[in-house]
This record gives sequence, C-alpha cells and structure tokens, in this order.
Amino acid sequence: MLVESCPQKTWQHVTAARQRGLLTGCVPTMGALHQGHVSLMQRARTECGYVTATIFVNPTQFGPQEDFSKYPRTLQADLQLCEQAGVDLVFTPQADQMYVADAETTVQVGRLTTVLEGAHRPGHFDGVTTVVAKLLMITQPHKAYFGQKDFQQQLVVRRMVRDLNIPVEIVTCPIIREPDGLAMSSRNRYLSVAERQTAVALSRALRLAADLCSQPAAVPAEVERQMRQMLLQTPGLELQYAVLADPDTLQPLPERVLSGARAVGLIAARVGSTRLIDNLLLSFG
Amino acid sequence: MLVESCPQKTWQHVTAARQRGLLTGCVPTMGALHQGHVSLMQRARTECGYVTATIFVNPTQFGPQEDFSKYPRTLQADLQLCEQAGVDLVFTPQADQMYVADAETTVQVGRLTTVLEGAHRPGHFDGVTTVVAKLLMITQPHKAYFGQKDFQQQLVVRRMVRDLNIPVEIVTCPIIREPDGLAMSSRNRYLSVAERQTAVALSRALRLAADLCSQPAAVPAEVERQMRQMLLQTPGLELQYAVLADPDTLQPLPERVLSGARAVGLIAARVGSTRLIDNLLLSFG
Repeated sequence: MLVESCPQKTWQHVTAARQRGLLTGCVPTMGALHQGHVSLMQRARTECGYVTATIFVNPTQFGPQEDFSKYPRTLQADLQLCEQAGVDLVFTPQADQMYVADAETTVQVGRLTTVLEGAHRPGHFDGVTTVVAKLLMITQPHKAYFGQKDFQQQLVVRRMVRDLNIPVEIVTCPIIREPDGLAMSSRNRYLSVAERQTAVALSRALRLAADLCSQPAAVPAEVERQMRQMLLQTPGLELQYAVLADPDTLQPLPERVLSGARAVGLIAARVGSTRLIDNLLLSFG
Repeated sequence: MLVESCPQKTWQHVTAARQRGLLTGCVPTMGALHQGHVSLMQRARTECGYVTATIFVNPTQFGPQEDFSKYPRTLQADLQLCEQAGVDLVFTPQADQMYVADAETTVQVGRLTTVLEGAHRPGHFDGVTTVVAKLLMITQPHKAYFGQKDFQQQLVVRRMVRDLNIPVEIVTCPIIREPDGLAMSSRNRYLSVAERQTAVALSRALRLAADLCSQPAAVPAEVERQMRQMLLQTPGLELQYAVLADPDTLQPLPERVLSGARAVGLIAARVGSTRLIDNLLLSFG
C-alpha cells in the first residue's frame, strides 16, 4: 500500500493505474476510521481495480466554534485499517498541500445546502464541496464512495457532480450501526459512558418513525411529532432537528402521502458537547 | 470532423482518444469565430493528437443588460473554420444540455474576479468559471487554450484550475490584431464604419503606454494618466477603465517600479453601444 501526501504524485499514481485500464475507486475520509469507513473501502475493493482512500481533516468544513482542533487523528490505526481493507493508495495531505496560501476558489451548491446541516453549520457544505471537488480531481476515480450516514452530504456531492459534469459515479453505502443501533461515527469517541447510552435515542427515534410510517394512512406530521417527542423526552439530549423529508430534495413532505411514498428521517442532536446525526430511509404503508 | 451536442457522447469520444494514448486539447469558444480563435485551434493542432473546440454562447456569463440575445451566432461558418483548422470534434450543446432545470452549483474565484471586468460585469466570472469547469470535465483536455485578449479571464481560469487541482494545462495565446492594431473580437461585428475607426484608439493607447514604460524611470501613474488622456480625448469613446496592473494579481502597481518590472495595460471602453476590451503586456525600461 502506497501512502502519499503530494497531490501531484497521487494524481500520477492513479493516472498510471487508469492507463493500465483499471477501474479506479476513491473513498474520501477525514480519518478516525471505523467500520463504516471500512465498509466503503471493502465495497470499493470489490468493484474497482485500484482503490484510493483519502485521509484529510478538512479545516474549511468546520465552523469557528466546531471541533476541528479536537477532531480525532489516528493515522497509524487508520493506515492499518486501509491496508487490511486492501486499499492500494492512501492520500493523506497536509493542509498546506491542499490549500495554497492565496487559494480563492470555492464550489457552491445552492438550495440543497441551505437546509438541515447547512442551516445549522453555515459554510460547512461550501467546505465539503470544494474539498471533494479537489479530491476527485486528484484521485481521478471512476467511482467515489460515500456513507449514507452523512445523508445530505452525499446528496450535495451528487448534485455537484451532476451540475459540473464531473465524470464519476457516486456510490452511497449503508450506515453501519453498533449492536444497539447507534450509527457509527468518528465523533462517537467523544461520548462518555453515560452519553453513549443517551446517544442510542437517535436511532430508536428513527426506528419508531419507520414503524409509524409503515402503518396504513400514516401522516408525515404525526410521525415527525412522535419522533420529536421521543427525543425531547430523552434526558441529556438537546435536539437540533428531527424531520421527515423528500429523499431527493430534502424539502418537507406534503401533508398527505400515498402508500409506497419514500421519505428520509433525519435527526441532529447534541449529547453533552458532542453533535450527532443519523438518518433512515422510510417507506409509507 | 465530428459535431456533437451531447455532453456524455462528447466525453466518450475524448475519453476514447485518451485511451488510445492521444494528448487532448480543448479550445472553448462562444462561436462567431475569427482569426484569434483560429490561432488557438492551430496551436492546439500542433501540440495535441486530438483537438476539441467548444461552441456555446453561455447565458450565465451575460448580465441582464448585456448582449446575450444579439451575440452573433454563425454556426455554419464556425464549423467551416474548425474543419479548416483541423479540429477533430466540435462540442456545440444547447443551453438545456449544459444546464438542467434545477442546476444549482457554481464555481467561484474570489478577489481576482472583483476587479476590472468583474467590477463592471457583476456575476460575469461566476458564469465563466462554472461553464469552463463543466467544459473541462466534458472535454477532458490535457491542454486548454485561451486567448490573451480576455486577459483577466485566462488568469481567473488559471486560478480556478490551480485551486481545484483540475489536471489541465492552461495555454494562453497572443492577441491577434487587425492591420491597424484593433484586437480581433466577435463583438467587432457590431461596429459601424465610423465606430470601427474610433475603436482603434484602444490599441493605440496601449502602444503609447508601452512606449512610455520603456523609457528610463517611467512612473506607472504617469503612464496611466497619459493613456487615459488619449482615450478621454477620443470622440465617440466612453472609457470604463484604463489601468496598469500586476500581470499575475491584477492589483495596482507600486508608485515606483524597477527597471525590467512587468505589468499589463488593460482597457475597457464603449464605442457606440459596443463594449470593447484590450490589453498589452508591458515592461519597464
């Protein structure tokens, strides 16, 4: 497994692989890898002849009050997981290799970035789209793998790729959960033992929403109400949002939906000082 | 010569050429081709094994009061010039093939787009960078060719390509001028006979600036003053700007410059209802 910090050399490695006729895959990460990331790398490994993982804690997608400086950095363990997953090349640049001092170009997606995470984390998605565009240019993948855990992120990246004609297929992989349902996240490391127990409320509320949706004549607003109520009644949890939305546009659902209608339940909450998100695809009964 | 309006098919043609090991070149244009464009295509032809020209009057780079609807469209003559220049593929999409109805992604370059053309044409460069990013993704060039005529544009495109790690070399080709010095431009077609004579003032003022700069101990502000004076004394010409600037940043020059210092003289002016620009690289004596 190659480990490379230079964008140009990374591009050269992948371009050589493409010229050998290999299908190239990329798994962009911020490191602090867990089984969710591993599942992305394994999927890429089964589908591609050359797999690049990127490890870069991107400063521009963190707000000034957010956890950039304390975000977990576990490079040695990360590289071991990459190697075990059969990754060919790890691209792990320093910030000044990604952003020259007078860099002034951003990629911005419109309306889709103004709601939910975009509303709670101003500027977050501009940082994400800009760095993902750069990572796609550097790692030249035929396929790029994102976790459904960051549901809005994969939608925003899909929109960017479509709108800018970037020749890559975005593959979204299922959320990997702990046995009790908690969605795996690098930020779970921040949780105390007590907070860890509280955190399971997010996935429980989403399972409740799924149960309610599956019943005949379920009404979106009522499902949302019960999901919120469960979360608001959870001590130690500070709810930011809990909504049902259109899974393509993230816009609110209509008052009444047809049987078979698809939706996504999305939750963000603070548990102690840790901000957690989770989501679940839903189908109305 | 292939003529293609579909982005996906264009990408497939170029990708096949790349897979055959050919160096690919792209010449993005808005059509209404003249010898300036032809010089770009000829340069691409000498340097590349597969040359794509794009012809697309991009609506998003025109302001609401600008000349989008009357911009000259001369597709049949354009295709003939492309064929004569040895172009392999002309990509000439319709607007709805470039922009889906709910497109919402833009590429933005910062400070470099706020001055000169950016100040006089708000939003212009956002349209340019977004469409050029798309055209580069679709036409997958190793090298892309731009005219020095749009000096700020080629700087902005270079900045975008650098900042987003787009793997393309930007080649800037010299301005092609009429015998009397007027820089060739698709918009010259708008000029009446009298306006055509007035228009030569732009290149004359730039030649004056070059002469003045070449003298020992030339002072930038004095060169600018004389350049402006010449333009302000030209009947029928409405000056928008005439400046000397740093050729990399477009920022103003210092009060005093060393012998051998480089600069660029940039002019924008209206002649009748036609807006013209011109520029010249300068060297201090």
